[in-house]
Amino acid sequence: MRLVKVLTVGAGAVGAYFTGRLAQTGKAEVSVVVRSDYDAVKQDGFHIQSECGDFVFHPAGVYRSAEEYPDEPDYLVLSSKALPDIDEPALIRGAVKSPGTTIVLIQNGIGIEEPLAQAFPENEILSTVAYIGATRTAPGVVRQKGSSELKFGRFGGGDSAAGRRLEELYRGTSVKASFVENIAYYRWVKLLWNLPYNPVSVLGGGLDTKEMSDRGPVENLCRELMEEVRLVASSCGVDLPQELVERNIEYTRNFPPYKTSMLVDFEAGRQIEVEAILGNVCRLADRSGISVPRMKTCYALLAALDRKHREKSR
Amino acid sequence: MRLVKVLTVGAGAVGAYFTGRLAQTGKAEVSVVVRSDYDAVKQDGFHIQSECGDFVFHPAGVYRSAEEYPDEPDYLVLSSKALPDIDEPALIRGAVKSPGTTIVLIQNGIGIEEPLAQAFPENEILSTVAYIGATRTAPGVVRQKGSSELKFGRFGGGDSAAGRRLEELYRGTSVKASFVENIAYYRWVKLLWNLPYNPVSVLGGGLDTKEMSDRGPVENLCRELMEEVRLVASSCGVDLPQELVERNIEYTRNFPPYKTSMLVDFEAGRQIEVEAILGNVCRLADRSGISVPRMKTCYALLAALDRKHREKSR
Repeated sequence: MRLVKVLTVGAGAVGAYFTGRLAQTGKAEVSVVVRSDYDAVKQDGFHIQSECGDFVFHPAGVYRSAEEYPDEPDYLVLSSKALPDIDEPALIRGAVKSPGTTIVLIQNGIGIEEPLAQAFPENEILSTVAYIGATRTAPGVVRQKGSSELKFGRFGGGDSAAGRRLEELYRGTSVKASFVENIAYYRWVKLLWNLPYNPVSVLGGGLDTKEMSDRGPVENLCRELMEEVRLVASSCGVDLPQELVERNIEYTRNFPPYKTSMLVDFEAGRQIEVEAILGNVCRLADRSGISVPRMKTCYALLAALDRKHREKSR
Repeated sequence: MRLVKVLTVGAGAVGAYFTGRLAQTGKAEVSVVVRSDYDAVKQDGFHIQSECGDFVFHPAGVYRSAEEYPDEPDYLVLSSKALPDIDEPALIRGAVKSPGTTIVLIQNGIGIEEPLAQAFPENEILSTVAYIGATRTAPGVVRQKGSSELKFGRFGGGDSAAGRRLEELYRGTSVKASFVENIAYYRWVKLLWNLPYNPVSVLGGGLDTKEMSDRGPVENLCRELMEEVRLVASSCGVDLPQELVERNIEYTRNFPPYKTSMLVDFEAGRQIEVEAILGNVCRLADRSGISVPRMKTCYALLAALDRKHREKSR
């Protein structure tokens, strides 16, 4: 059986974990493009500590850029952060040599697929929503907690042989992977949580999920931000039932307190995903003439805060 | 001529400056209640560095509490910060012995007079708006920059003999003091600037006036917050002309960059005036059923941030 060829670009904690699990199946040959952790990964691979079993992931090839990859991947997995200064097409162009490569984009936020769709009109794009708690704790070392889940579907919707094949590859692993025909819906569902709680955790001075569940003004702001998300989603043809709002509130109240990923990035002095989580959604609202005053307030404040914070850390 | 008796309670930079200028006239006998700077002021008075002339202000009496004041003041000037944990009536009760004492309240914000009016129904309250840049740079040392202005008027509006007499006392000094019949209007005019720029400077990560004048999203948020202030003011019978909004934008763009007083307090780890500047205005909006989504977003975030920040500084 020919091995499925996978190239993971921007292999941080999330990318390393998910494609490491693919490599474990023995059915895929997974190579990676890494930058800051190149030396550690080249020498030792990724050491992954996971509640579903620790393992060492030795990539088939370790490269500093996509250009160095000598082959033609079946799946090119891009799992970098969604940041405006990253030219994603440029990151992967060197390895996308034919329409035979399916681009798998694992990122948070909304409106993040367009630049890739425009740059690679011949390639199928699988938009992916990941549910995972994974952190890089040292060069080449990843700690993963709890369960892990991947939902992917064709950007634009509809059936996909590549999507079904990827689901098949994950069968039997600890990753709950599923191909869906309406990935846009799941992206919006995830955003429904991310859009309020990520920015509010940062703007509120470093609030964890428990502190945001104050049954008062902060929780109420989160609820109203979710209602604004529902309006924008609806204008994009995605119907998010109101129950999801209350489910998010309940989930956040009852889950053990944790810091949002945006807060973790912020406190580490890293750039945060302001545009993917807030900016793009505000622009969709503008395009449809929808009023989202709370979202725009958070967007203006968070963009300024992010800029100022990185200025200070420099 | 009998000297006018003044007792200044909470004599920080602003109170010391304005009542020090009164003492300089030779027509007033000014005593002070101070806490943290008691020793310095008791020994050396206030050393005031001012563009309108340096001077040393030796109070007639220096006390640790209002109870110690042996006399009955004509004017009791209260110039503490407007913070919810400060019991203002308790701060001054010991010195308010008869209806002959006029209470002069120098504070920012809206809805700050009520607790005093309820505690001292027999006493006239002069609500005061101060325009001054004054900072305490060391114990008993105050630096004042630029011009200084006081507007005061009877809480509730109307004529006031005590107000006119205070205006008269300031005549010939460098303080531009004026009695007005409609002080509520001037309070709202000052709030029209304070409500957007103070919170946004803090929530945006420490923005000075220049950085808030970005001719983009931050300035636009400030403009929209001002429009929300206009709605609430209008529901309170105060008409703030739209031109004032654009005038504030222009002023902020063109004035040399500076940090708002709220930002200065925040960076020094001090409690900020969230309720006087934002909370009370949101509650007025609620009472009138007015929608102020941006203001409420800033209020929820700023209250959380203030709490969290002081937790961390402890």
